[in-house]
Amino acid sequence: MAMTEARTTIKLAVIPGDGIGKEVVPEGLKVLDAALAGTGTTIERTDFDLGAERWHATGDTLTDEDLAAIKEHDAILLGAVGDPSVPSGVLERGLLLRLRFELDHYVNLRPAKHYPGVLTPLTEPGDIDFVVVREGTEGLYCGNGGAVRVGTPHEIATEVSVNTAFGVERLVRYAFERANARRRRLTLVHKHNVLVHAGHLWRRVVESVAADYPEVSVDYCHVDAATIYMVTDPARFDVIVTDNLFGDILTDEAGAITGGIGLAASGSINPDRVFPSMFEPVHGSAPDIAGRGIADPTATILAAALLLEHIGEPDAAARVSAAVDADMGTRARANEEGGPLTRSTSEIGDAIAAALRA
Amino acid sequence: MAMTEARTTIKLAVIPGDGIGKEVVPEGLKVLDAALAGTGTTIERTDFDLGAERWHATGDTLTDEDLAAIKEHDAILLGAVGDPSVPSGVLERGLLLRLRFELDHYVNLRPAKHYPGVLTPLTEPGDIDFVVVREGTEGLYCGNGGAVRVGTPHEIATEVSVNTAFGVERLVRYAFERANARRRRLTLVHKHNVLVHAGHLWRRVVESVAADYPEVSVDYCHVDAATIYMVTDPARFDVIVTDNLFGDILTDEAGAITGGIGLAASGSINPDRVFPSMFEPVHGSAPDIAGRGIADPTATILAAALLLEHIGEPDAAARVSAAVDADMGTRARANEEGGPLTRSTSEIGDAIAAALRA
Ligand SMILES: CC(C)[C@H](C(=O)O)[C@@H](O)C(=O)O
Ligand SMILES: CC(C)[C@H](C(=O)O)[C@@H](O)C(=O)O
Repeated sequence: MAMTEARTTIKLAVIPGDGIGKEVVPEGLKVLDAALAGTGTTIERTDFDLGAERWHATGDTLTDEDLAAIKEHDAILLGAVGDPSVPSGVLERGLLLRLRFELDHYVNLRPAKHYPGVLTPLTEPGDIDFVVVREGTEGLYCGNGGAVRVGTPHEIATEVSVNTAFGVERLVRYAFERANARRRRLTLVHKHNVLVHAGHLWRRVVESVAADYPEVSVDYCHVDAATIYMVTDPARFDVIVTDNLFGDILTDEAGAITGGIGLAASGSINPDRVFPSMFEPVHGSAPDIAGRGIADPTATILAAALLLEHIGEPDAAARVSAAVDADMGTRARANEEGGPLTRSTSEIGDAIAAALRA
Repeated sequence: MAMTEARTTIKLAVIPGDGIGKEVVPEGLKVLDAALAGTGTTIERTDFDLGAERWHATGDTLTDEDLAAIKEHDAILLGAVGDPSVPSGVLERGLLLRLRFELDHYVNLRPAKHYPGVLTPLTEPGDIDFVVVREGTEGLYCGNGGAVRVGTPHEIATEVSVNTAFGVERLVRYAFERANARRRRLTLVHKHNVLVHAGHLWRRVVESVAADYPEVSVDYCHVDAATIYMVTDPARFDVIVTDNLFGDILTDEAGAITGGIGLAASGSINPDRVFPSMFEPVHGSAPDIAGRGIADPTATILAAALLLEHIGEPDAAARVSAAVDADMGTRARANEEGGPLTRSTSEIGDAIAAALRA
């Protein structure tokens, strides 16, 4: 009996963005193609011109038409957006956060891993390998705040953190699923001794979902203490589940201790698959090194691995991760043997793609 | 012509608290006395029984009578309060935060300094010597939040960060004063690309106060980036000014990078002197090592130095800081010469007091 291979086409919205975003995205796509070769799954790519350049040219950050078109896709790959010439907040809120909210990206998944040989600022990094499951559609990111008497000595400005049982529970369930598939250790990070209402909601939800995952051990840590452990004992973490702002803070610190956000990838995920999820490197558009072909595409390639996992290609995802591991090993050996490898952006992408096709 | 020495009595409210709090406070007092010997200023001490033990015995955290009595003092020295037997939040909100809010401690001053020889988790700590000026009476710490439909799938919990021009400006002025007396570099930490209303209030206030301090250079950093710099380049900071929650997070991270919060002191200050200010070590009551006389009193002694500065004894304060510097040098040499000094809590206090009297 002849097996017929199922053929699937993944409609991928690609947002190269600005600066090095444009340089790393092609490497991510190269690796996606290499990883999917022979699986029967192919990528059909549509580019979206969004970011600082578009904003300068047209004043648009993300139009309703852009959004509607993006929604027709299965997933999104983003390079990086932003430029010092754009006022702070414009692209963050008008583009990045708008995508997260409109596409109901309630999970922001950020793995933190220290690769052997990568320089870390810590003397004893230990075995750093954890993921942060950050809430993406609530908390202080809702834009729920305001100000009165602006510009006067009587100004009052508020910011409201909104937390719902619905929103917290769906995130916490996702985090427990992740933990269950890993080392089975989940840490809730919050500040419930001060933020009583939100904190207790998070705590109760974690306690109640925990009942469905008896094999996952659950831990709690105030956010201030978490920033200490991140530096003194990051190996203690497996899955961290936390709110939008705490997650923002902790993932940057996590990037720093693992040797720089240059290697960190992020998924803004709608696990229910109602809307396309988005995958991206955590680093920015780095205008200072843009255009020279020297940006490291590894974070984007790791974002591609998260994307593969999300679209139902866990084997391809694992192969990409393994190829990155191997490439990091090559770098470490070069460092030991006399000097760092100097490879261009596309040489790194080529090397990893070649390893995948081998 | 004979000079008559002005004689001043400082009425000091002392809250030893729980665990090692009771052990480190006597060393702080010992050092205060030694530093003030010959200055004409003397300490008149009143003890307040507050903390976990009192709560277990009476159910009180801080009564109106306690508060009224404390207000009759010039300053407060606190050891540490808390015990795992007390539910999280009870003493934090009922005692510590209540004191900060009732006594209008709008400045929370937390120096971060790496002493040579002290083990830090960073490979290249550089010259870490900065202070965090954290707001203490606003932000997310106001208790302004609530919840509806608690315990149901429709629960909504909010936390409101309240920021006022009045509250931010008085803090920012204090921070500029500090910066002006130091290396003249002030960094505002916020997240104004997301927290637009509060962020812009902070930004505008910093810009307007900056006009009065033309010699202070002003810098801005998002809180997530600040947690990175804290690990990769902490020497860049001189004075950080920030809100209540960001300050909570950053000062713990600062404690970690300087070699543990065991050496960090904190002042909850009302610069207008309407109410007594409070000085304390940042560490907790450490029930695991309490009762054995092995706690390091250095953080409390540094808190005593902050207290001396606040009560108008800057020379005595400087001598305490210098004596701590010297003691840290002694430790570093001992470490190099074969092994750490093993000294009891009171032996460390004695050594520093003796140096001050010498
Ligand atoms: C750019 C900014 C809005 C964003 C955030 O705060 O979430 C970024 O810091 C991140 O972590 O993705
Ligand atoms: C105990 C707690 C309420 C407190 C805070 O959050 O301010 C502590 O973490 C601190 O930094 O003094």
